[in-house]
Amino acid sequence: MTAHVVVRDFPRTEATTLAGLAELGVSTVHEADGRRGALAPAIRPVQDGARIAGSAVTVSCQPGDNLMIHAAVETCRPGDVLVVTTTSPSTDGMIGELLATSLRAHGVIGVVIDAGVRDVAELRAMRFPVWARAISPQGTVKASPGSVNVPVICGGQAVRPGDAVVADDDGVVVVPRDRAETVLGAGRQREANEAGKRERLAAGELGVDMYDLRTLLAKLSVTYVDGDAT
Amino acid sequence: MTAHVVVRDFPRTEATTLAGLAELGVSTVHEADGRRGALAPAIRPVQDGARIAGSAVTVSCQPGDNLMIHAAVETCRPGDVLVVTTTSPSTDGMIGELLATSLRAHGVIGVVIDAGVRDVAELRAMRFPVWARAISPQGTVKASPGSVNVPVICGGQAVRPGDAVVADDDGVVVVPRDRAETVLGAGRQREANEAGKRERLAAGELGVDMYDLRTLLAKLSVTYVDGDAT
Amino acid sequence: MTAHVVVRDFPRTEATTLAGLAELGVSTVHEADGRRGALAPAIRPVQDGARIAGSAVTVSCQPGDNLMIHAAVETCRPGDVLVVTTTSPSTDGMIGELLATSLRAHGVIGVVIDAGVRDVAELRAMRFPVWARAISPQGTVKASPGSVNVPVICGGQAVRPGDAVVADDDGVVVVPRDRAETVLGAGRQREANEAGKRERLAAGELGVDMYDLRTLLAKLSVTYVDGDAT
Amino acid sequence: MTAHVVVRDFPRTEATTLAGLAELGVSTVHEADGRRGALAPAIRPVQDGARIAGSAVTVSCQPGDNLMIHAAVETCRPGDVLVVTTTSPSTDGMIGELLATSLRAHGVIGVVIDAGVRDVAELRAMRFPVWARAISPQGTVKASPGSVNVPVICGGQAVRPGDAVVADDDGVVVVPRDRAETVLGAGRQREANEAGKRERLAAGELGVDMYDLRTLLAKLSVTYVDGDAT
Amino acid sequence: MTAHVVVRDFPRTEATTLAGLAELGVSTVHEADGRRGALAPAIRPVQDGARIAGSAVTVSCQPGDNLMIHAAVETCRPGDVLVVTTTSPSTDGMIGELLATSLRAHGVIGVVIDAGVRDVAELRAMRFPVWARAISPQGTVKASPGSVNVPVICGGQAVRPGDAVVADDDGVVVVPRDRAETVLGAGRQREANEAGKRERLAAGELGVDMYDLRTLLAKLSVTYVDGDAT
Amino acid sequence: MTAHVVVRDFPRTEATTLAGLAELGVSTVHEADGRRGALAPAIRPVQDGARIAGSAVTVSCQPGDNLMIHAAVETCRPGDVLVVTTTSPSTDGMIGELLATSLRAHGVIGVVIDAGVRDVAELRAMRFPVWARAISPQGTVKASPGSVNVPVICGGQAVRPGDAVVADDDGVVVVPRDRAETVLGAGRQREANEAGKRERLAAGELGVDMYDLRTLLAKLSVTYVDGDAT
Repeated sequence: MTAHVVVRDFPRTEATTLAGLAELGVSTVHEADGRRGALAPAIRPVQDGARIAGSAVTVSCQPGDNLMIHAAVETCRPGDVLVVTTTSPSTDGMIGELLATSLRAHGVIGVVIDAGVRDVAELRAMRFPVWARAISPQGTVKASPGSVNVPVICGGQAVRPGDAVVADDDGVVVVPRDRAETVLGAGRQREANEAGKRERLAAGELGVDMYDLRTLLAKLSVTYVDGDAT
Repeated sequence: MTAHVVVRDFPRTEATTLAGLAELGVSTVHEADGRRGALAPAIRPVQDGARIAGSAVTVSCQPGDNLMIHAAVETCRPGDVLVVTTTSPSTDGMIGELLATSLRAHGVIGVVIDAGVRDVAELRAMRFPVWARAISPQGTVKASPGSVNVPVICGGQAVRPGDAVVADDDGVVVVPRDRAETVLGAGRQREANEAGKRERLAAGELGVDMYDLRTLLAKLSVTYVDGDAT
Repeated sequence: MTAHVVVRDFPRTEATTLAGLAELGVSTVHEADGRRGALAPAIRPVQDGARIAGSAVTVSCQPGDNLMIHAAVETCRPGDVLVVTTTSPSTDGMIGELLATSLRAHGVIGVVIDAGVRDVAELRAMRFPVWARAISPQGTVKASPGSVNVPVICGGQAVRPGDAVVADDDGVVVVPRDRAETVLGAGRQREANEAGKRERLAAGELGVDMYDLRTLLAKLSVTYVDGDAT
Repeated sequence: MTAHVVVRDFPRTEATTLAGLAELGVSTVHEADGRRGALAPAIRPVQDGARIAGSAVTVSCQPGDNLMIHAAVETCRPGDVLVVTTTSPSTDGMIGELLATSLRAHGVIGVVIDAGVRDVAELRAMRFPVWARAISPQGTVKASPGSVNVPVICGGQAVRPGDAVVADDDGVVVVPRDRAETVLGAGRQREANEAGKRERLAAGELGVDMYDLRTLLAKLSVTYVDGDAT
Repeated sequence: MTAHVVVRDFPRTEATTLAGLAELGVSTVHEADGRRGALAPAIRPVQDGARIAGSAVTVSCQPGDNLMIHAAVETCRPGDVLVVTTTSPSTDGMIGELLATSLRAHGVIGVVIDAGVRDVAELRAMRFPVWARAISPQGTVKASPGSVNVPVICGGQAVRPGDAVVADDDGVVVVPRDRAETVLGAGRQREANEAGKRERLAAGELGVDMYDLRTLLAKLSVTYVDGDAT
Repeated sequence: MTAHVVVRDFPRTEATTLAGLAELGVSTVHEADGRRGALAPAIRPVQDGARIAGSAVTVSCQPGDNLMIHAAVETCRPGDVLVVTTTSPSTDGMIGELLATSLRAHGVIGVVIDAGVRDVAELRAMRFPVWARAISPQGTVKASPGSVNVPVICGGQAVRPGDAVVADDDGVVVVPRDRAETVLGAGRQREANEAGKRERLAAGELGVDMYDLRTLLAKLSVTYVDGDAT
């Protein structure tokens, strides 16, 4: 049968890299990593305006059971992001104010969960950011085994402990630890590149000219007509 | 065929009990009632920050038809919560500003509806709280019979007229009238109990120690490993 | 095979008519047009409190490809609303801050998209309103042909270039250009009519009396009972 | 907290009534009961061509846990239908070939489950009919308490132990035990009534004439036009 | 308000064209029309193995009300396909055995409905093919106005009366009447073209060679590696 | 940016192990691997009665683009199962009769795809089994890069090239290659174990006795009552 384990420690993404990724935000990081790693859009922020990046502490739970989240807390380090999945789909509220208080006390800066959360008024008041599939008062038990800090699938993406998890109003993106610094570099370049474009577009220059798309449109046989073509 | 009825009056949950349940909030009440009565998480608040508890006035409508909501208004008493269902699934906007104005004039403090609402900007401005499955401009007719103050299923839960309905940012929970006071008692005990826990967790004590979960984890053969186990 | 076209110009809805429709808002306009034209409620506002009306510039894209949105920009005029669909379902983030900047520079006042958007924190900060099926960081390519300013289906409704598109917190409604002025007239009448009703309902008058529904309820064999009928 | 109970015995619907309801089939029974009691269409038959009616043995389980189904078996009597729900949504395969063998040995004629089943090739080969929300290999544990033969909500409908459950290719309908015989009578009348209609319609007579709908259409201002009205 | 109309007659697609489209089947027709016209995959066949093509008779109904389907019957001609939509989403069983009998008596060869059907065992036994969003016993009333033979949206596609509707196990595709013959020609060419390809592929020739895709793959920088690249 | 690769070869699961897993079937294999590896139940068989096990050839495509499936064919070996995913959600019909013919010519015994398929009548006639999220006529292009034989996520599970993929009427399960033989052993033991249980249950022995669950039920405070407890 399955061996359930709690992995106590693992290499994390560099703090300075994480700080840089948080500045870039989810969509830029996703582009900078070759359009990879975006979690399903059904994983939504519970609050507006948060933007974080941290190393993943991963948890795999039975649906309706948050025992392993409790077991995960002591493996958390300041700056970590808790990433929670269930072995089959669930919308139960697996994390609330008390667990958030405990996680924060151990330095966790946010939670990404492919299931539900509750006490959202309190979580917002605490400014403890959460990205979740559902908000639900449905409570859970503490009865079934699972694993902590093993590779998991969350929102349709593979997450390994120590990977960089970036989350903001656009959603969540995961970057494998060993690519994180390269992605940061690519993202900064992209951002620098975009600044100039933003000004030109704001001045009315057309994207079809700026990105030189007219040739492509012609090659794709897109025809321009003056009146109503329908 | 079906007898459609409007039940004019019925016993309600005590006002003081309702006030207590509102203070506790949805998730605590749900726990205090043995993790029962949570409506499906698809029933979402239209606004942020509202927290109410009232006796249910129940309405069963044809989809796309709000005639029976109009019929329900005169059965409402101050402090009631209107609970609306349809006989088959619908997202139409069955309640808007005018109906909300009428409901408020008769003392209704909020609406829970397993269908759609509209005029949500106006409802938010009025501070009239609504929990709904959908927001939709799609209008309804006033043409088909239904019933008022009969047992209904709303968001997957049975609701009887007079039951306590508690709603906040976490969603909605229903407590049968005859259990409401007991649940209030259990909820207050739980809340008192949680206050101490919150402080200990905030101070860094681990849930696995506080709830004595290490024995359980061992019994479930959850193994602790130091490095990467994958 | 399909001829892909960009239609450069087309007749638009009158600016004064659009201003009037924006004042009325989505739900009133929908009612005034005989309860037609409401887009599916899955198309949600990305922000709170926006209310716009403009002429539709329509775009049909391949899923995961926003080339044709770039091609559409030069066909936009001040006051237009961009309406985007994909040839099969997609949640990818097809529009972000840069495209919004470009659209705004050409006078576009908002976007309705049956797919995803991203950079929503920036869009909200810019006060550039968007109604979308999803929020997603998932990026798109600029590689596949499509059409601009042809009739499209968006959120289950037919939209033609130049049609009036009205959008607010309730969602989105489309009114065919040739009906727009008539609908405005009907909507104003409806609004005038509602003002009196609002006051009467606020004073406690019942809808069943005001709308004369008691006869209908009797005809439908809805029976009134005093006690618990269950 | 919740008291979990197994109710050993309860009054059932008469066998002759059940035989009659099975003959009528789901849609006729649903009509005969005033269009009530249809479970959500998401509860689908696993096989084609089965048609059953039996008294409900009800089971409420934790998601991912089928312990209480095992506990329910000894309360089953020949001709019963097992009705299973979970306390929050689940698609796990809670019933397979072994449990079906056990249920059949105790006289159960079919299962209705608001969750998943598995071993469907074997269930079909056994001709043991099942109506389920999902087919899933995902296994369950036997660890958590629940209740047997208490009122439950299944597929959005209230089901009490002993109620008549009718299921066929159209889905599932529940009829409260105390209405079952009346409904059977109404259903037979309806069926007799339909036989004549079927012949007339097959001979080309129009429903608008047979049901005398032309007056209604005129009253509703439906206009007939000869050419293209659009 | 809306004018509800029944349009008695309209031009249809040629019978010989329809016969040809039926032979080609849905997916080939869809390709031959430039990958347009496929209804949403949620519209599924109720039976296996049917393949039809006919002229659309269109019906727009209130949800939960099949009055206008009855009104549509006398506008049907032999070889027609009934296409039914509702003004807001519904899964109710709007068509059953009796209506199917009536439709068949007037020459209708099948039904495409963006809502529910019932009596599916009987429909299968009658070999009357139906494509529907849902199977549901939930009955409907005959009370609300709608329109017959006006343009509708069904499964996310625009359908006009007289358009060619092709349906088989792959789903449903609509082809505008004035393109139908051209599409038939293109489809036949495609089919002829595919016959040779099928043989070559069956003999083991690779698609990357037959379609000359190796150059494209190289241009797209797809690299071939011999071992495990991960 | 992303490096797109086609990995030409990789270690596969042993043929004899695969044959054994196919005999066991999906649900038994899933149990034998500690209840892991079940793909989401939304991935459904297109046909009834197929049961296969093969080594995974994995493909990651752009939505709406099947170029990389063509690129994958030459990496297939007899007995392989093609596992296809898209970089964002899609229901387009990415595989049809021609591709199936090509895959079969190269020994592929079935397809698992987290997207759509078409030509399902032909696929069933060919007895080429497919498990898919959707059936859709919507065609795809051959234009965008992707990867072949890299780790992918399909139906919410991680699949690596060479992993054992087992599929039947219950759905699909993936077993990592290095666990496949151990899982086969555990599955055979389980099956042998079940044979005896099946006989005892068929003879009327209760699961609560056979699995010794009465002690657990008592420990969980499940109470037995004789009458109606509600």
